[in-house]
Amino acid sequence: MAATEPLLTFEDLTPGRSFSFPPRALSRKEIVDFATQWDPQPFHLDEAAARASHFGGLVASGWQTGSLCMRMIAEGLLNKSTSMGSPGIDEMRWIKPVRPDDPLTLTVTVLEARPSRSKPDRGTVRLGYLLVNGAGETVMTLGCWVMFKRRAPAVSEI
Amino acid sequence: MAATEPLLTFEDLTPGRSFSFPPRALSRKEIVDFATQWDPQPFHLDEAAARASHFGGLVASGWQTGSLCMRMIAEGLLNKSTSMGSPGIDEMRWIKPVRPDDPLTLTVTVLEARPSRSKPDRGTVRLGYLLVNGAGETVMTLGCWVMFKRRAPAVSEI
Repeated sequence: MAATEPLLTFEDLTPGRSFSFPPRALSRKEIVDFATQWDPQPFHLDEAAARASHFGGLVASGWQTGSLCMRMIAEGLLNKSTSMGSPGIDEMRWIKPVRPDDPLTLTVTVLEARPSRSKPDRGTVRLGYLLVNGAGETVMTLGCWVMFKRRAPAVSEI
Repeated sequence: MAATEPLLTFEDLTPGRSFSFPPRALSRKEIVDFATQWDPQPFHLDEAAARASHFGGLVASGWQTGSLCMRMIAEGLLNKSTSMGSPGIDEMRWIKPVRPDDPLTLTVTVLEARPSRSKPDRGTVRLGYLLVNGAGETVMTLGCWVMFKRRAPAVSEI
């Protein structure tokens, strides 16, 4: 077995650092399955209804696009880190529709890193997400705060 | 067959109007299934790992909580309206963890309504979401812009 890599901690997530993840597409079946369960609007469910809508064809639920990015960052970054989860998302923008089989590439950049004042074992990092389709167009952006444990507890600031 | 209700349009979504949707819970299986596909972090996937985490037990992915609200509003409001989809979400806050089988009640309030200046057939509405658990605690809030067609094209403002 290969030696296990040390987990990424708060200290590793310095502003300006960025991470890219391998492209992934949503198939027509994945789009319809997700919409059936979570977002049953005609333009996510049915090709004919979607063609008749202002989208002109089947498009993925924005929640599925967000969830796909969650999968990419969970596998590619958070599960290799000391992540303690996220308090929320800011300014999620669905800029272009996501179509079946379009390869989507996510880049995540550390925008800001704040050590916790009250809890010296952790800090919060603001990540900016940029999701680009096969034509190079931005389809989604969002900002996300994630809490990470520090490598070693900081000296108390009291 | 009952007479079909007229679709809700931009004009019906006046600031201050609010809509509540019947409570719905996420089962343990639904939480694990969603996490397996979209958010494979240990505290969403496995009870023992979740107990050992700072969450102290299995919690739903925040993306699943958002998707559940999407389902409630799609079925309860958008599919009975002239909705044209959403350009995005602001300030999604995951305030308390969502646990298996906790009944979640969504209330959506119209915060703002802006007729389009360039396209007289539509307008954009800002909705505030409040999701409350069985103990009456707020578990999630978010703001969402949704575009709706107007009842009849407005007189051109040129």
